[in-house]
Amino acid sequence: MTIIEAVPNVSEGRCERVIQALVDAVTNVPGAYLLDCSSDPSHNRSVLTLVGDGTGLTNAILRLFAIAIKEIDLRTHRGEHPRIGAVDVVPFIPIQEATTAECMELARNLGFAVADRFGVPVYLYEDAAILADRSALEEIRRGQFEGLVDKMQTAGWSPDFGGPLPHLTAGATALGARGPLIAFNINLRTEDVEVAQQISRLVRARSGGLPAVKAIGVSLNHRGLVQVSVNLTDFKQTPLHRVFNLVQREADKLGVEVENSEIVGLVPEDALMATAAQSLRLNGFTPRQVLEARLRHSLTLPSSCPALPTLQKPDGEP
Amino acid sequence: MTIIEAVPNVSEGRCERVIQALVDAVTNVPGAYLLDCSSDPSHNRSVLTLVGDGTGLTNAILRLFAIAIKEIDLRTHRGEHPRIGAVDVVPFIPIQEATTAECMELARNLGFAVADRFGVPVYLYEDAAILADRSALEEIRRGQFEGLVDKMQTAGWSPDFGGPLPHLTAGATALGARGPLIAFNINLRTEDVEVAQQISRLVRARSGGLPAVKAIGVSLNHRGLVQVSVNLTDFKQTPLHRVFNLVQREADKLGVEVENSEIVGLVPEDALMATAAQSLRLNGFTPRQVLEARLRHSLTLPSSCPALPTLQKPDGEP
Repeated sequence: MTIIEAVPNVSEGRCERVIQALVDAVTNVPGAYLLDCSSDPSHNRSVLTLVGDGTGLTNAILRLFAIAIKEIDLRTHRGEHPRIGAVDVVPFIPIQEATTAECMELARNLGFAVADRFGVPVYLYEDAAILADRSALEEIRRGQFEGLVDKMQTAGWSPDFGGPLPHLTAGATALGARGPLIAFNINLRTEDVEVAQQISRLVRARSGGLPAVKAIGVSLNHRGLVQVSVNLTDFKQTPLHRVFNLVQREADKLGVEVENSEIVGLVPEDALMATAAQSLRLNGFTPRQVLEARLRHSLTLPSSCPALPTLQKPDGEP
Repeated sequence: MTIIEAVPNVSEGRCERVIQALVDAVTNVPGAYLLDCSSDPSHNRSVLTLVGDGTGLTNAILRLFAIAIKEIDLRTHRGEHPRIGAVDVVPFIPIQEATTAECMELARNLGFAVADRFGVPVYLYEDAAILADRSALEEIRRGQFEGLVDKMQTAGWSPDFGGPLPHLTAGATALGARGPLIAFNINLRTEDVEVAQQISRLVRARSGGLPAVKAIGVSLNHRGLVQVSVNLTDFKQTPLHRVFNLVQREADKLGVEVENSEIVGLVPEDALMATAAQSLRLNGFTPRQVLEARLRHSLTLPSSCPALPTLQKPDGEP
């Protein structure tokens, strides 16, 4: 059974009514399953995690675009996280019996449909990029929504689909294909965003830090904290605890305490197992030593994970 | 579906032929599934983890007794771990749709059969104990195999089944019912067993340490190490990392380094998740954030855990 994951990031993290409408849009679409929705008011952004097949995910995300375009106006949107559009970015990730090539094709076909149907210009990124020097999401997002008019007229920055102008209220969108990624934020007990920015530069791969780590420093005004907001693109290359420990050490040097950390969306089991094994210095640990995994394998048990929240009724033709 | 776990501890951890015969004995018994076999040459002991229903487990463990009694002679057995018998101890643990009362009944019925069929005296312990002051396994094991003849003649220490003398070569056995337990060893880089014994006294509940922790200090001669050998009876009360961190701190004070740690047998998923969440200081983490758990729940996926080793053909009538 083919399973692809799609993780739309939408520029609304505060208004419950709109977030619920976005959730409703992707609920009860055949072939697509909403696993998680994480909203952050400081980022003013919601991250939805969907799994399914290509057709189901395409249908769900087109419905998501329709609601996001109707409800979100980037001209008045403020948040700590950089963004270019109402649906800011949608990566597709192969999970089971799926390839990067299929995810790339999905992103490109969706890109055509989004530009064609909604008039929202599309940039393709990472493994879906057509232009090699446009594969980095942070480059596509540089200048944000507010800079899009100028950017789209700059040589090399016309969109892959749509344009030549951004959508008036919904901006543009980035669609991509990539491997699994962990969104991991470490919160620091200071209001000085410079601290988070300085540590971000030290830990991220781009400026010579840890491999497979992207990081930005942002302010969490409403909580009186700052945040090192990390995307970890390969937890086997750089485990979660290595990122955490480095941030903690650098914060120590600056006399700043770590408040806590948080996972945005979902995290692969193995990433947590590796962290546990490391922090206990477990010798020769393998997932084969986990009771539930052995039970599931031996007895094909019903899963003991907690029930999903009651899902919404479809709000129209699915 | 009822699932009970049984964890026979057998006094042979060195001879591959005997260990294989013990594994064969509990393989392909209807209603019983061998999940794991961990052998330790220093302890000279193997820990088997079985799950199944009461009848399957009873049949499997009676077969295990037959082989252990035939192959193991406690008169010449040497190992670092205290033991009273060839099959030293078998706890039954309710896992799913099973109660402590059922496990208690299982232990008692098995106890009758073991004494009756093999002439091996049986002590019932923990939740299966008939005499309240005999519930602690360490009390039953005090004096070990070598002290059994005297012990069984001491007031209050006649076995619950069988006796009045121990089996000549197979000693006695302890059968019990209890909650899940994690067998967790922390290895220290010294050959001075006093260090492990001193730290064990500091961490174990019995001498005022951490709740739900049993610990003994043993020597691992063949590796030039000593070990704090821990049984954690409630990882929600005392998480794994709290035990590890305390042992590490006390070892530090004595100028001894922690070499590593190890899980014997299987460990519940939640115990590792809690350790990971703690070491990353994850805020508000729940198992609902684990991708595979959500996938299993939503899609009823085939488990992605690794295959079991090729199991043995039955060596006779199962």
